[in-house]
Amino acid sequence: MNDQTRMKKIKDTSVSLGHGSGGKLSHELVSGLFVPYFQNEILEDQTDSALLTIDNENFAFTTDSFVVDPIFFPGGDIGKLAVCGTVNDLAVSGAKPLYLSVSFIIEEGFEMTALEQIVNSMAEEASHAGIKIVTGDTKVVDHGKCDKVFINTTGIGVLEEDKIHISSAKFVKPGDKIIVNGPVGEHGVAILAARESLSFELKIDSDCACLNHMIAEMCSMFKQINFMRDATRGGLATVLCELAEQKNMGIDLDETTIPIREKVKGTCEIFGFDPLYMANEGKVVIVVAEKEADPLIDFLQKHPLGKDSAVIGEVVSDHPGKVVLQTEVGGRRIIDMLAGEQLPRIC
Amino acid sequence: MNDQTRMKKIKDTSVSLGHGSGGKLSHELVSGLFVPYFQNEILEDQTDSALLTIDNENFAFTTDSFVVDPIFFPGGDIGKLAVCGTVNDLAVSGAKPLYLSVSFIIEEGFEMTALEQIVNSMAEEASHAGIKIVTGDTKVVDHGKCDKVFINTTGIGVLEEDKIHISSAKFVKPGDKIIVNGPVGEHGVAILAARESLSFELKIDSDCACLNHMIAEMCSMFKQINFMRDATRGGLATVLCELAEQKNMGIDLDETTIPIREKVKGTCEIFGFDPLYMANEGKVVIVVAEKEADPLIDFLQKHPLGKDSAVIGEVVSDHPGKVVLQTEVGGRRIIDMLAGEQLPRIC
Repeated sequence: MNDQTRMKKIKDTSVSLGHGSGGKLSHELVSGLFVPYFQNEILEDQTDSALLTIDNENFAFTTDSFVVDPIFFPGGDIGKLAVCGTVNDLAVSGAKPLYLSVSFIIEEGFEMTALEQIVNSMAEEASHAGIKIVTGDTKVVDHGKCDKVFINTTGIGVLEEDKIHISSAKFVKPGDKIIVNGPVGEHGVAILAARESLSFELKIDSDCACLNHMIAEMCSMFKQINFMRDATRGGLATVLCELAEQKNMGIDLDETTIPIREKVKGTCEIFGFDPLYMANEGKVVIVVAEKEADPLIDFLQKHPLGKDSAVIGEVVSDHPGKVVLQTEVGGRRIIDMLAGEQLPRIC
Repeated sequence: MNDQTRMKKIKDTSVSLGHGSGGKLSHELVSGLFVPYFQNEILEDQTDSALLTIDNENFAFTTDSFVVDPIFFPGGDIGKLAVCGTVNDLAVSGAKPLYLSVSFIIEEGFEMTALEQIVNSMAEEASHAGIKIVTGDTKVVDHGKCDKVFINTTGIGVLEEDKIHISSAKFVKPGDKIIVNGPVGEHGVAILAARESLSFELKIDSDCACLNHMIAEMCSMFKQINFMRDATRGGLATVLCELAEQKNMGIDLDETTIPIREKVKGTCEIFGFDPLYMANEGKVVIVVAEKEADPLIDFLQKHPLGKDSAVIGEVVSDHPGKVVLQTEVGGRRIIDMLAGEQLPRIC
């Protein structure tokens, strides 16, 4: 072991579920451990996809491992999720997703038909998204040494010069409108329902979907999209907290306009969860210049993956670094990043 | 589930350790399940790295998940292995490795200092190799749902036009010489010794090393390198069996010239393993035109990672598809691909 530790700011002596949550502890791990050791300017940007320039061509490059439990759930399975997750990470960086690698870690004894079902989902989703799965790896570990199957997907996309600012949020400014392409929290609730054997009563499907075609069309029509991020682990709230902190600007949200289905609200209430922190797998947060907000909503609402799109708030110069929710009953509530993990193994 | 299965040739109803071995069952899984579903011409090539052309630029793209047990072993750890493995996969395809993604799956409760040690190894090895770790992901699963830590690395490298033939073995022909850059089986035996608590007596280190600088220098000096492959899971034997089958040519090996340390031989004998199938993590098999073989050996032997390099055999037109070993005692033995798994979780 190195004598001179480069690790910073990490007080925990062991890894907890919160370190994989996408919230505060995840940020601590990234900025306290990974960034100091792997130090390079690309990683330090801490965008979801790394932006690479190779021979004057710009690329986005991103990786995700999927450990969702259960592996089959209403609206999808771990295979579909693994393709959508990485495709969406590339798409929200403004890139056109091209190629995926797929790596399986499988528990000895896993049923071959279940594996085939997962592979079939991946193939279908890759075909919808118009990307190719070009390389892979399979490891098998003894029974009990992993939980059924874990999947890593890593993706490459090409990125036009005029889209590079999107992941860095460079042009985000007070007055910009915040849009989400539909009701939030459905993936999280679908997983929760599957775990609690409530799927049959609840009938809530995961929103798991590849957004790349919708985003590409949108970006070709609207030139003042200043930021996009898919609201996965940590939900809508975490994306907005990160953005407010990064830009040192405030964000005002209007609770009455945030699309959340009644069933999602109800289930979250029963289990003591906040739908704003529930994971999505087909939702993108878009920050757009005010004058493009209305036409963008018109466009999105005509798209199958955006028909319930809504303006949910705006960027403000007040309360820098803070996200403030104007509640339905007239109060104001600060939305903070989650310290721990609301629901582990959501993706 | 799809009614019309595209799965072929797979008789097993569940996944066994052998499906992750890199041997016969792994091949069945790839050609029987992944290729039929993910069908595209790049994947069908079944090279270790996918070869991509984006805007007239050639890239190699490869992924590996590492599940080695134990995670710390003589000569390295899972972090060093995860960097070397992917760097070497790119290098043997003839590419210059540039960027890596890293994705961790960590068991809840894993010690933070152990994670730091692994991250430190990755940073050191990335620095030696001259590559950047530019993006990552961390998932944490409940205690007992994975074994300490699994790491996926996925890499991108640039590939010059005149090296594209190397992974496909296009120019391999009878008369070409087969070279290995040093004694085989050391990674496998180091892991075995660590598991059996024999490390102290045996003092065999894993050969885990990034070969990209040596390979780059070699490729700039020698123009008739017709094939390279790193001899990892499945060892030297598996690489040669794959090559013989793919080219439908024979391979003659001379047992007296294959470098294997006495300690490796002895340990393999005790445990009933064949060193030709033992994993390496710093060994490359090179097929070179006959006239370049001697100068190539001279070059390699001057390099720290190649000082025990040797010509171990040649490509022949006899016995197509078969690897034949001329044994020390004068016999001939056919070297076949392993059906199952000699030693699971070796990488």
